[in-house]
Amino acid sequence: MKKAVVLLSGGLDSLTCLVIAQSQGYEVHAISFDYGQKHRSELVAAKKITERYNAKHKIIEMHALGKLGGSALTDDSISVKDFKGDDKIPETYVPARNIVFLSIALGFAEIIDAEAVFIGANAIDYSGYPDCRPEFIEAFRKVADTGTKAGVEGQAIKILAPIIDLTKSEIIQLGTTLGAEYGLSVSCYRADEKGHACGECDSCHFRKQGFIEAEFPDPTRYIVK
Amino acid sequence: MKKAVVLLSGGLDSLTCLVIAQSQGYEVHAISFDYGQKHRSELVAAKKITERYNAKHKIIEMHALGKLGGSALTDDSISVKDFKGDDKIPETYVPARNIVFLSIALGFAEIIDAEAVFIGANAIDYSGYPDCRPEFIEAFRKVADTGTKAGVEGQAIKILAPIIDLTKSEIIQLGTTLGAEYGLSVSCYRADEKGHACGECDSCHFRKQGFIEAEFPDPTRYIVK
Repeated sequence: MKKAVVLLSGGLDSLTCLVIAQSQGYEVHAISFDYGQKHRSELVAAKKITERYNAKHKIIEMHALGKLGGSALTDDSISVKDFKGDDKIPETYVPARNIVFLSIALGFAEIIDAEAVFIGANAIDYSGYPDCRPEFIEAFRKVADTGTKAGVEGQAIKILAPIIDLTKSEIIQLGTTLGAEYGLSVSCYRADEKGHACGECDSCHFRKQGFIEAEFPDPTRYIVK
Repeated sequence: MKKAVVLLSGGLDSLTCLVIAQSQGYEVHAISFDYGQKHRSELVAAKKITERYNAKHKIIEMHALGKLGGSALTDDSISVKDFKGDDKIPETYVPARNIVFLSIALGFAEIIDAEAVFIGANAIDYSGYPDCRPEFIEAFRKVADTGTKAGVEGQAIKILAPIIDLTKSEIIQLGTTLGAEYGLSVSCYRADEKGHACGECDSCHFRKQGFIEAEFPDPTRYIVK
């Protein structure tokens, strides 16, 4: 059975990628990163997701990334703000995060002989992170082609970003068709220990709007205020 | 003073990069990775080098990379072989290692506002690792341009590989001119705890030949057999 490594944060987009990968016949090897993120309940969500979908799962310890600081997601001295909707890259940007995650995923794919790496990057309803855009994914594909043994030997590992051009409501519609149970996923940057969402951060904003536009019931558990 | 992040393994090539960066007026922030490599004495060498050259130094814990396995440098079940000289990628190849290291260096550079990342990749007297070749470095530059805040805002971090096209003897000649004390560096994949070299692995082979061709005394301390 062909294998794929799926970057699984535990949020809505990465859950969608997991069900897409399975629908394409891949045996899914999901990896999640414990990088010192404040919203650690996404890791609990990732675990539940892989149990529900019977996928292999590895949580990779990467505290070094969080310790470098520089992001509201990892640095206690910087707070996660409510959604603003301007065109600035927000403080939740973690320098080079997706580059690091994709690199590890690529190395892991090479080791287990996987054909592809799936990443749930999305450049439509998103916070403007540079490492979620198609031009970045395209550049990383060249890295996979030129920088790995698999690539040099003509079996380059495919870097797949199947939801990059979809709106959040389109992602939800597609994922639901493929059996994604979004109540299992946690997207919120300020999620509490039980995975309840704040409803006000960038990530909650886009997710909430997505369910409204898709006209689907929103299964997110919000913090009662 | 302009800053540069220098990937410092503790070997000959990365020491050369450090002195090149200093000669170009950069304040050097060296980073080394503790990734479960068997030849840990290179980390001791890296520390000594940064003390000698008065550079800032950070050892980043990245055991996750070694735990993925798949390389003679990290996996106890695979031994480091003597130099063969064929055109196969040897078992010391660590899948995606330089991609991971460059990614972390890039994130760190962004956080400390460094202008450049130096990597001592070399594609002449080397083991054929794909992630040491110019086409890989060029691909990674595109990743730095497109995948970081710095890149998107027009201040892309430069990825510099100043010794990529030099022979080992040219590297030694250049470095010596700039004050590199190669006796401080450890290149051997089977170095003992005190940094004594085996003299027989790929890395020792190229280093030893370099000193012979440069007609410089070889300061390497070899294991007495």
